[in-house]
Parts: sequence; structure tokens; C-alpha cells
Amino acid sequence: MKRSIYFLILLFSVVFFRTLAQTASIRRVDPTNWWVGLKNPRLQLLVYGPKAGSMTYTIQYPGVKLLKTTKAENPDFAFLDLQIFPTAKPGTFLISGKLGSQTVSHSYELKARTTGPKAQGVSAADFIYLIMPDRFANGDPANDAFPDMLDTKVDRSIPHLRHGGDLQGITNHLDYLQELGVTAVWMTPVLVNDETLKQEAPDRMQAGYHGYHFTDHYQIDKRFGGNDAYRKFAQTLHQRGMKLVQDAVYNHVSDDHWLYKNQPFKDWFNQWPTYTGSSHKEQALYDPYSAAVDRNVLLNGWFTPFLPDLNLRNPFLATYLIQHAIWSTEAFSLDAWRVDTYKYNDLAFLNRINQALLTEYPRIHIFGESWVGNPVAQAFFVKNKIDLPFKSNQPGGLDFILYDATNAALKEDFGWDSGVNRFYQALTTDGLYADPQKLVTFLENHDTDRYLSVIGDDLAKYKMGVTWLLTTRGIPSWYYGTEVLMKNTKNPSDAEVRRDFPGGFPGDQANKFTDAGRNQRENEAFNHVKKLAHYRKNTPALQSGKLMQYVPQNGTYVYFRYDGAKTVMVATNSTAQEMTLETARFSERMSGFTTARNVLTEETIRTLSALKLPAKTAVVLELGH
Amino acid sequence: MKRSIYFLILLFSVVFFRTLAQTASIRRVDPTNWWVGLKNPRLQLLVYGPKAGSMTYTIQYPGVKLLKTTKAENPDFAFLDLQIFPTAKPGTFLISGKLGSQTVSHSYELKARTTGPKAQGVSAADFIYLIMPDRFANGDPANDAFPDMLDTKVDRSIPHLRHGGDLQGITNHLDYLQELGVTAVWMTPVLVNDETLKQEAPDRMQAGYHGYHFTDHYQIDKRFGGNDAYRKFAQTLHQRGMKLVQDAVYNHVSDDHWLYKNQPFKDWFNQWPTYTGSSHKEQALYDPYSAAVDRNVLLNGWFTPFLPDLNLRNPFLATYLIQHAIWSTEAFSLDAWRVDTYKYNDLAFLNRINQALLTEYPRIHIFGESWVGNPVAQAFFVKNKIDLPFKSNQPGGLDFILYDATNAALKEDFGWDSGVNRFYQALTTDGLYADPQKLVTFLENHDTDRYLSVIGDDLAKYKMGVTWLLTTRGIPSWYYGTEVLMKNTKNPSDAEVRRDFPGGFPGDQANKFTDAGRNQRENEAFNHVKKLAHYRKNTPALQSGKLMQYVPQNGTYVYFRYDGAKTVMVATNSTAQEMTLETARFSERMSGFTTARNVLTEETIRTLSALKLPAKTAVVLELGH
Repeated sequence: MKRSIYFLILLFSVVFFRTLAQTASIRRVDPTNWWVGLKNPRLQLLVYGPKAGSMTYTIQYPGVKLLKTTKAENPDFAFLDLQIFPTAKPGTFLISGKLGSQTVSHSYELKARTTGPKAQGVSAADFIYLIMPDRFANGDPANDAFPDMLDTKVDRSIPHLRHGGDLQGITNHLDYLQELGVTAVWMTPVLVNDETLKQEAPDRMQAGYHGYHFTDHYQIDKRFGGNDAYRKFAQTLHQRGMKLVQDAVYNHVSDDHWLYKNQPFKDWFNQWPTYTGSSHKEQALYDPYSAAVDRNVLLNGWFTPFLPDLNLRNPFLATYLIQHAIWSTEAFSLDAWRVDTYKYNDLAFLNRINQALLTEYPRIHIFGESWVGNPVAQAFFVKNKIDLPFKSNQPGGLDFILYDATNAALKEDFGWDSGVNRFYQALTTDGLYADPQKLVTFLENHDTDRYLSVIGDDLAKYKMGVTWLLTTRGIPSWYYGTEVLMKNTKNPSDAEVRRDFPGGFPGDQANKFTDAGRNQRENEAFNHVKKLAHYRKNTPALQSGKLMQYVPQNGTYVYFRYDGAKTVMVATNSTAQEMTLETARFSERMSGFTTARNVLTEETIRTLSALKLPAKTAVVLELGH
Repeated sequence: MKRSIYFLILLFSVVFFRTLAQTASIRRVDPTNWWVGLKNPRLQLLVYGPKAGSMTYTIQYPGVKLLKTTKAENPDFAFLDLQIFPTAKPGTFLISGKLGSQTVSHSYELKARTTGPKAQGVSAADFIYLIMPDRFANGDPANDAFPDMLDTKVDRSIPHLRHGGDLQGITNHLDYLQELGVTAVWMTPVLVNDETLKQEAPDRMQAGYHGYHFTDHYQIDKRFGGNDAYRKFAQTLHQRGMKLVQDAVYNHVSDDHWLYKNQPFKDWFNQWPTYTGSSHKEQALYDPYSAAVDRNVLLNGWFTPFLPDLNLRNPFLATYLIQHAIWSTEAFSLDAWRVDTYKYNDLAFLNRINQALLTEYPRIHIFGESWVGNPVAQAFFVKNKIDLPFKSNQPGGLDFILYDATNAALKEDFGWDSGVNRFYQALTTDGLYADPQKLVTFLENHDTDRYLSVIGDDLAKYKMGVTWLLTTRGIPSWYYGTEVLMKNTKNPSDAEVRRDFPGGFPGDQANKFTDAGRNQRENEAFNHVKKLAHYRKNTPALQSGKLMQYVPQNGTYVYFRYDGAKTVMVATNSTAQEMTLETARFSERMSGFTTARNVLTEETIRTLSALKLPAKTAVVLELGH
């Protein structure tokens, strides 16, 4: 008897809790809000919660019409297609779901669009500064770790764990960035990476400190400050006349992403019978002879075993990501997008998401990371002048070709195809691009050996490369810390090139943010960058002016940036000896000019027929009369 | 008295002979003849002789009208513009020149066009054999040297002098070439090089044995046999179903050219205040940022101090060269043109001469030598799919990109961007070309180190590269002697890679033209080329079939040539170990096939799921059921 009572209680409990669990509810709706007044009147809501897929939905709000409800394969998901008519006013409506006698509802806000600066784009008039926010400055030690997150470790002594940097830390040093001449901030992703440590290498468990392992698209990592801090960060930048670039990842998410743990459709991710990594061979996309399997493995193979590869051909996923891009731009007033692992994404999807952003924000800039080795490949992934079956609509791209060439030019001795010829030659194929001025140039990034180490810790070479970066065509970008001579190679790991900025963290003995904290050599580097960045900022000829370059000779390399107002000559002597450069050859650009101002030394040059070029130096001359 | 008589006699003599010398006459007219029935009705005659520029010309011939006479700057030249109406019949007319009371005349023939094979073009169905005629075979020792020529030396012991080879020598070995599978002969130029020895290097005086130093466009070098022998040679080739490719040089002539010694206009050649060599930097032509001076130096700088650079912007010179191209095609029944130093020529001129040839001979092929280092440059000089300001109309070109890649693929170990990846990757940019099948592929030429030496004298590698050449896309070409393992590098000079074909010259101890004269290794090489050349000749899939290639893996590289009738698989194992290749990955091309014939070994393979690939071997499999 006793036993049967216990049994009945047990049975009752199981039934009761199962029923509870099976009660329909709406746990979240993505996008988390929307706006009235966007050009695209359509909105597709992802509704998630127990039995979300089985409910019948209604929305009653003037100017909003629920067009269609789609039940996902996973019963916990529904997709609601809405039309937002121009008559819709900002406000909140209820998304009501009915299942049998049960009705649940979820409050959803249509906001008014903000009117401040937004989607301004970045151009060759800008100077972008790339920051890994965990590694730059810790402005708020209270947000370093949270017990409710999967990774609670913060330890600056371990390269692959979180170090505590945040948005407040960057905000604290915006004066520093503006002193340097920076006009735009690009951070490695700030979306939450709420994940366990990952096996990045046989001997290394790594945190998602770099940000590329998204676990929720609609949360800025609270260890960086969260959504509100990010919105405020954008406002602060805009108040200073600076811009904000966000780093997107379309290719993959963390295996701790909530939509990997709960997949709406079986094909939300690219699935393979056994683990299949990407080939990384983008050639298969433009090779006229490629096999379908090679295109498939490149695009749909996984980046690592813990980064599930998103199936961008699933139309609901595609819309989810496109709306997230619009939502982020609108919610945070972003100015431009950098797109991670660009070459691994479905080409049709890329054009769709680019077009959606460009339609909504005509001035926005998009520059993807296609790490490729030849200009044809680079051109393939941006708007180009090649008549290939696929035509990309991406306005810009990171210029890996010029990056390679710059480093090679500085490492190699001058020769037929080497030394400064590498830099010269890289620019000669610019005719492939619809607009090479929209490529983002760089000396290094968070995935490469640091510039100073690549060029043998040679300050003269450092200055030459910096001078080229800040005076040639394109949108220059900069990796944090190189201005104070941070260096290192990726040996033994990536974390070596992602060290903390000295002075950004509590207890730091050195403070490289200040003149006094930098040694003489560091100040020499900092001031070189600063001088040229400000000169570029104030010299339209270096921004939108034309470029004319001359075939390098005997280790010298000469080019001009010029417009109706000004002509700037950049004359490089890449050799280890001082040289005298006869200038008769450059008469197409120099004729009529009689004097020059050396922009870096402020010296005045009173005769231009021959120029003294110190060893390993790029001289910047503003020509005059 | 006596002295004054002597003086009078002397004075009389001087006046008499000066008057004689000043008597107007016509010494030559170029083109040396013309034809009725060509599509272009215009003909411009260069008339040369004392006072040729001062005469008034008349021509009386039905269907021929003298439109205009132009006096050149040099009084010894006139240019006569003629219209040849469709009504003109073959025959001979007089060009009459009148100066004061003097009338001179020159007989000029309008021929009927021959009806035999002519301007057939070469295609991917051909196999071109490149011969340096002085070095292949001496069929007529009587024509080795002539006392009335500037260079009378013939000495096989000196690498840089003439060795005595000739057209008859080649004719004697056409059976040999056809046994090898050759379908077309391309010789380094056969135009007369009647010049003094030139200082090719500080320690070396060199004869024009290679043919690139023209001294008269209308004479085939009589040391090769002269015009008649060349005409007969073309007929012999055509009777055998073979084709003839002529090697053109538009960029320069020898400083012993009769039109350098007698220049019609001051700007017939590009003149410089001091000697100026070409920069060889073709980048200046497509670089959107290039300076005029760099384009000028590339195009108009001289190739060497003894090769005057023709000014192709002089309209009379341009017409002279264009008519010579037509004349040669018509007079000798040429099938195709290879164009030397293509990238050094005025771009507008190149398009004009190509168009003139293509208009008159729609099936002709033209493939220039643009020795460049990247596919964008290579595409720039041929019909391409890039929207650049200049668009070339050249149908083909020598494929220096694939040449580089092939040699690199064989020299390097397999890696991310190395080994067979080089060959694979070179083909992936084929989308730049209007028709990559029209590029002429090669392993080496007379200006490069010989193939076998480049690849370390490794017969296995040799066979791999030969297999690729003869099974991939494009028009394969071959440099004489490599089939019998001739090797060498250009150290100490070019002549090392231009040695005499063993057996081609009187007194040769070895005779590599015969099976018995070749050793076992040489026969192995010869038979490998022969087997594949004949297989290609009989297999349309290898000629006009499609190509599908797969991303190389672990040192293997697999591609297919296929059409409706046949599928040929080429599976390369570039490593030093035998490998087993799983074929599931290739199902897009292999599905439905169950067996294969190994084309090289004649083995039958009865299961295709996995293939044994010997070390350093490219296996050619014809798939079957």
C-alpha cells in the first residue's frame, strides 16, 4: 500500500513536470527588436520556445501584418514573416501564440530610428585602428568574469585565457588614438563568446578572448560591457568625429552557440558523415575547371571541429544573418563592416547580405577578409573588372596582396622581382578592381606575425613601410601596439601577437600610452606614425588624389599623390647607402615645381633637380613653387 | 700646263661620276611582289633608289590605280599607295618614275594566289616542334657560308658561330618528327641575318645563327636555302599534313639591316640622346598608375645596342611590317605566326597587324612571346576578359605562366603553394583569357635552361611534366632535342641550350634520329613523348575536350579531359613513394566507369575504387565500361 502511494506520487510528479515542460511558451524572438522606416518592409522573426513551432500566431498592430508562419523542423522554432508598412509607428505590440486553449504572448518593440551619425562608411580619408578588446585596456575590472558564464577564468599570465580588457578601457584611451591620428576603430568581435575553453592545439586550451566564437548574435559580451556599453561606445566615437567598424562572421559559430545547441532545421549547419575541414583552397571558386566537390569542401567544410559551419543556403538562416547585420548597424550605429573568413561563404549569400546592407545604408563600407595569394583571387571576392561567371558586389576587401608585397619589399634585397619591386608590382594589377581605393591596407593583423618582427626589428624599415601605408592608395588600417613597437611572431601560438598593450591594465609597470612611458625609440616610431597620419588627414591629395608610380631603379622607388591643389612625392631609397636621385625622369609630375617641404623633417628643399635620399628611407615631399 | 690638264681630268671625273651616282634609279621595291584577290585592296610600295623620292610615278595596268606618292625624308625613298581593284588580273606592270627628262621603270608582278593549304592555324590538336635551323641538321653543306655575306664563318666548335644547319636538314628528318607525333614546325627566324658578328657579351662575339637579327625582310637566309627552298619546305610539310609556323620580330632589326643603313624617315627607329635599353617592365603598360616615361622606355628602349628599335608609330613602317606579314603568309603558305618580343611593341600596332592577318586569313593563329611573371600580365597581351583601357586582339600567346608553374611543380616538394599545387593553381586563373585553349604551352625554349637540367636530370619527373604538357589544355609545343634528352643550362651562354642535334651534321658519331642511335634511357624518353603525342593526336577529348581538375592532396594531382565520346583521367603522384588513391572524390567524372586502360603501359585496370600510383608518375587512364 505504502509502495503504491509512492508510485502514484512518482507517476503524478512525472506527468506534472512533463506537462509543465510541454507548456508552450516564447522564450526569445530574434531580432530582439526592429525599427519603423527601414527601406526593406519585410521582417522575419525567429520565435523560440517549447512548442513554438506548433502555435498559431497573431499580431494586432497598425501598419504591421503577419504574412506567414513557418513551422521549423525543430518543434521549438517558428518563423514569422511580417510586413512593416510605411504607416507603422514606433511602439510595442504583442506576438500572440495559441496552442489549443493556451495563449502566450511576447512583447515586441518597433523603435524609431536614431538620427545621429550611422553607416558613414570608411574611406581612404580614414585611418582604422584594429583592437583586440580583451588585450588593449581594462577599464572596468568588475566585468572581467561572471560566474554564470561557461568560462570564468581571467588570467593575464596565461596567453590563451581572457585578460580582462573591455570597451571602457578603449574609451579611456580614445584621446591617445586621436593623438595618433586614428579616425576609426575596428575591434575583433564583441559579440558574446560564452563558451567553454576549446582545444586550439594539442597542448593548448583557448578561450574565445578574440571574439570569433559567437554564442549569441544579439548579445555584446558583458565582459566587454554588454549592449548598452557598446551603444554608448559608438556614440562616444561619433561625438569625437570617429567611426566604428564591426567584425562579422558569417561562416561559423561556436559549438556553444544557442542555435547550435537548438537547431531550427537539420540543415542549419553543414553536416558531414565524418569531420571534414575546409580545404582553404578558394581557387575552386574561380577555376573554370573546378569540381563541385572542391567547391563544396572549401565552402562547407568546417573551420575547426568546434566551429560548426553555417549552411548559408538555408533561407531562414540567411535571413537571420542578414537581419542581424541590419539590426546591428541600426542598433549600434555602426559605420562599416569587416567580414571574417569571407572566402569560405556561399557566394550568393554574400552578395545578398552585402546588397541588403548597401540598400539600407548606401554609404556603408564592407571589407572582407579573403586571405589569398594572387590579385585575381583578391579581385574575385570584390567588385572587379573581370568577366567571370560570378560577380561579387563587395565594395572593398582587406588587401592581402599589398600586405604580402609590403612585407616582402622590406625583407628582400632589391632585384628584378624583389625588394621594392614587390610593392610597385602589387599596385600594377589594380586595374582588376572596380575601385582599389576601397581596399583596406595593412602591415599585419591579429593572425599574422607582427610587422616589426617580420622586418627584423629594423626601425628604418619600419618607417619606410609605415610611410608607404600612409601615403599610397587605399584605406590604411593599423594593428594596435605597433606604434609603440610591439612585436613577436606566432611562435609558439597566436597569442604571442595578441599581447596586452602595456599600460592598459591595472598594475602595469610601463605605460606606453604616454610620451613619458615610451622610450626614445618607441616615441620615434609613435611620432612617425602620428606625423604621417595627421598629414594624411589634412591632405586630400593623399586621400582621394591620383597615384602615379615609377618603375623602381637601383633600389629606389618613387611615386606621387596629386590633385588640383597639391602634389606629394614619396621617394624611397631602399638600399643601405645614401643615394642621389636625379629627378629629370619624373618631369611628368614635377615640372613647374621648384621647391619642396620635407613633411617628416620640415626641411625646405630649394633645388629639385637631384635629391639626397638617406639609406633605408622613404622621403615625403610636398612640392611647391 | 701638264698639271692643269691633270686637274681638268680629275675635275671632269669627279663631276662625271657624281652625275652618274645622282642618276635616278629604282633599286628595289618592297613588297617584292603582290597578289590579286586579297581582301584588302590597298598596297603601299616602298620604292628605293637614288632620287627615288624626287621622281613622279605612273602605273598603267587594268585594275590598278596609283592613288598617291609620298616623298620620304630620305630622298632615296618614295612610298606609292596603290588600289588593287577586284578586276585586276595576275600579270606584270611597270612602275615608271620620271625625273626631269629621265624615265626609269621597275617591273612589278601581281601574282595569282596559290590554292593549296595556307593559314590553317594551329590548335590544341597540334603538336608544335621548335627548331633552331642552324643547329638541327645540315642537309646541304654547300650553303653553309657565302663569301658575299658579312659573316663567312661556319665552325661547329664555336658555340656562338654558325654551324651549318638548314631547311634541307629539317626536310631530311620530317619522318623522324612525324614518328614523334609532331604536326607543326616552328623555326627560329629564317629571314636573312647578313650581319657582322655582334658583341653579345663582354667576352663573346656572336653570329646571328638564331635568326632574330633581320637584315632584309624579303630574303630567306640562303644559308638555310633561300626563298625557294622555304617555299618548297612549306609545300613538303603540307603534303605530309604538317603545318608551318613562322617567327616574326616587329620590335627591332639588326644594325646591318639595309633599312637601318638607309632610313626612309628620321623616325623609322626610336632614337635616344644616349643609348637607352628597354626597362623590360611591361607592368607600365597595364598599371593604372604608370608614367608616360616608363611606357616609353619599355616600348622604345632598345633591346641591345646593335638591335635598333623600330618606331612602330611611323605609319609607313607600320604598313611595311603589316604587308610583310601578309606577303610572307601568302608567298610561303604559312599556317601561323609566333611573334618574338611581343610585349615590347606599340600596342596599337600589334592590334593592327593582328587584325590585318586575321582579316585576310580568318583561321590563322598568332601567338606572341610575352615573357611575364603573372597571369594578369599574360592576359593583358592576349584576348582577355578584363575590362582594361587597352584590349588586345591577339588570339593566342606563349603560356609563360604554365611554363613557370610546370617547372616549379617538378622542382619543388609538395606544399600549400608548392609542388603540383603550382601547376594546379596556374590553371585556375584561366578565366582571365578569352580562350586558354589557344595558348601555346611549353616546357622550355631556346632562351631558357633546358627542361631536363631544370628538373635535375630526373627521368621520372621528365615523364610527369611531358604527360601534363600532352594531356592538359592548350597547344603543346616542344623544343628540339628534349625527346632525346638534350640538356644544359645557359651557363656560360645561351648557346649551351642550342647545341647541335646529334646525328644532324656530317661526321656526327652518334645519330639520335634513330632508335639504334639512342641509348635505352633516350629511347624511354623518346617513346614516352611519342606515345602521348600520338595518343593526343587520336583523342579529341585531349584536344577540344573539357578539363576538370581537382585540388591536389598529399602530393597527388588529378584531372580529367572529357567529351561526349571519351573520358581520360590523369592521376599524378608527385611524391617519392607509391600511393593508393581513393577515387570516391572524383565521382563527378568517374561515375559510370568501371574499367580503365593505362594508356602508357596498355594495362587494363578492372577496379577503379582505388588506384595504385607509382612514385613520381602521372598515370593516364582512358576510362571504360
